[in-house]
Amino acid sequence: MVNVAILGFGTVGSGVAEVIYTNNRQIAQRVSDPVEVKYILDVRDFPDSPFADKVIHDFSIIENDPEVDVVVETIGGATIALEFTRRALAAGKSVVSSNKELVAKHGCQLMKLAKENNVSYLFEASVGGGIPILHPIRSCLAANELDQISGILNGTTNYILTRMIQAGLSFEQALKEAQAKGYAEQNPAADIEGHDACRKICILASLAWGRHIAPEQVPTEGITAITLADVAYAKAAGMKIKLLGRALRRDDGKVAAYVAPHLVKEETPLANVVGVFNAISVVGNAIGDVMFYGQGAGKLPTASAVVADVMEAAKAKGYIKSNYWEEGGEDVVFSSDEVESQWYARVSGQEEGPGWKKLGAADGQSAWLSEGKLTPAQAKAELKGLEVKTLFRVLD
Amino acid sequence: MVNVAILGFGTVGSGVAEVIYTNNRQIAQRVSDPVEVKYILDVRDFPDSPFADKVIHDFSIIENDPEVDVVVETIGGATIALEFTRRALAAGKSVVSSNKELVAKHGCQLMKLAKENNVSYLFEASVGGGIPILHPIRSCLAANELDQISGILNGTTNYILTRMIQAGLSFEQALKEAQAKGYAEQNPAADIEGHDACRKICILASLAWGRHIAPEQVPTEGITAITLADVAYAKAAGMKIKLLGRALRRDDGKVAAYVAPHLVKEETPLANVVGVFNAISVVGNAIGDVMFYGQGAGKLPTASAVVADVMEAAKAKGYIKSNYWEEGGEDVVFSSDEVESQWYARVSGQEEGPGWKKLGAADGQSAWLSEGKLTPAQAKAELKGLEVKTLFRVLD
Repeated sequence: MVNVAILGFGTVGSGVAEVIYTNNRQIAQRVSDPVEVKYILDVRDFPDSPFADKVIHDFSIIENDPEVDVVVETIGGATIALEFTRRALAAGKSVVSSNKELVAKHGCQLMKLAKENNVSYLFEASVGGGIPILHPIRSCLAANELDQISGILNGTTNYILTRMIQAGLSFEQALKEAQAKGYAEQNPAADIEGHDACRKICILASLAWGRHIAPEQVPTEGITAITLADVAYAKAAGMKIKLLGRALRRDDGKVAAYVAPHLVKEETPLANVVGVFNAISVVGNAIGDVMFYGQGAGKLPTASAVVADVMEAAKAKGYIKSNYWEEGGEDVVFSSDEVESQWYARVSGQEEGPGWKKLGAADGQSAWLSEGKLTPAQAKAELKGLEVKTLFRVLD
Repeated sequence: MVNVAILGFGTVGSGVAEVIYTNNRQIAQRVSDPVEVKYILDVRDFPDSPFADKVIHDFSIIENDPEVDVVVETIGGATIALEFTRRALAAGKSVVSSNKELVAKHGCQLMKLAKENNVSYLFEASVGGGIPILHPIRSCLAANELDQISGILNGTTNYILTRMIQAGLSFEQALKEAQAKGYAEQNPAADIEGHDACRKICILASLAWGRHIAPEQVPTEGITAITLADVAYAKAAGMKIKLLGRALRRDDGKVAAYVAPHLVKEETPLANVVGVFNAISVVGNAIGDVMFYGQGAGKLPTASAVVADVMEAAKAKGYIKSNYWEEGGEDVVFSSDEVESQWYARVSGQEEGPGWKKLGAADGQSAWLSEGKLTPAQAKAELKGLEVKTLFRVLD
């Protein structure tokens, strides 16, 4: 018997209990041992839940129960979740998490703690929801030197951009619709300003190249400046606007990671990822391009990834299965200011452009595509004297 | 030190040697042990190869060398490859294979033999080339009851269909081009008649649902009947023609698997998989839709998957990591004749259709889409009296 304690009975936590309950037979078969939820820790009670009798309010019960094998942390944030994760690992329990903020900030020390205690710390659900991505990077792509990762890592912003592109809604209208549908929170800043995508590209890059890359090292730009004019000009160029988290490895081993809107050619797989779906494209020196696509959030998809990690931790008794990377530092990264790309610019004024290829003009403004590849500073220099409204990279 | 013996120094085998050599440092770090090629078995010599000194011609040297940990079988076919795989497993060596024919025919007995000898039998590269798919099904999606798998599993046919769709080439022209580019063999039957895709959907379905599904249980139709008229009518309906391998699980646990051309709606991710790329879409009861995309063939992408399996087998010393499924039988499958779908038909004659939605007519023939979902027998009954040229399912 594998006993699981779930910390936090919100959307993901309740999904985890549901998946363990619904797919109990198959899970037991695959783990060669039944997997059961023993405790659910929450500040609230859930008298109407079928799991009501498992709800407790005192973490030390879990910490001190030698029967608990795996602790699922779906609290979120980096305060109480950090404390409980530390205590669970120190108590010799494997921990599975969907908490991207915690992993992006403190993953390195938590994985070290897991290693010291010979247990697993796994967090597949922290990036791409249900999409298998961390596990494949760690195992299936392990024979490759990875060159770059580019991902649509946030379903909320992809939904908003999709509605702007497909239905002609303004950013504000699309955001309101996303909020009404429950895809965006009432305070949508973490999504629309790119912070959620930033945490995810940090986790991906850290795992891919083996040293911690912190959110502070990742320049992050959201989607709030994008207008329907940008959407229309992109379309005129055969492209779609997507918010991408990117990480690129240079020959010297240093990595540049950043989050920003990009113009993506319509025929590429990433351009065709619509709505709340996520997709992560990885380029390796043997495998070439490979892409992983699916639901990047939601109760059951996220729970699917959490429970798969629970099963892996359960099967790994006495044989650590854990993500791992080393401490980071200044020497790990290079600046995205050094990364060259083609650029898209929308500027005030219709007549005098920067000498780039003109995409169109209307309403006292015009849009342009650079001819060659430029660093951000070079692009800005070529646009000197113009009032730049938006300036986005074009994905190769 | 992990010693590898490669059986067969063709495209994939030489790619495996190259990847192990090129990415040696990272591989050693990730396995916590250096991985080296000790032997290459082939009937030929390769005096100009950097690996010339490793080439041998006698399998028993490998079989009897206790230093060989992992045998890579990239011979292909199901005769000598079967014998060597059996002998390697019986000698206590893990075997990694890219051989879909062997796995689809004899996988079940080989996995049993691996289990008896406490070694791994892994074959990620047998489906989707470099794309991680078997491993994710076995681990990352393990918390799900899977409902269906639909894949573009053959790059040659996808290349031919892409050229028909994008460049207006006839089937014959596109096939010739594919042969000229090395994407299709001089005898292209295994690809264009769907047998290659059939083997792959067998492997996927067997792994997903735990019992062997044999090629004889999978009705298989290739792409040779598709004309540019079909391509144009599909386009008029907002769809693209794709050769899919599909497997669907019914509530009673039985599985129907088949290979056939399908009309796929243009906005779906599978429709946008072009050229020699492959993609596999999996639907699970928790995760919903998830798709894996990449290069389904080719020297280095396939080698990427083989070497990842080698690394997994190497790390698993004393802890078996193996794919596994039970023997099959009549009771495993139900007939695809019971699977309902919408249908596309091209028939002789322009005026009198079957009462379905007319897509268009020209050159003495016309094309139609059924209104509702029908079994194949029902569709044929509704088309009674008409000369049916092509009859394809529409993917939901």
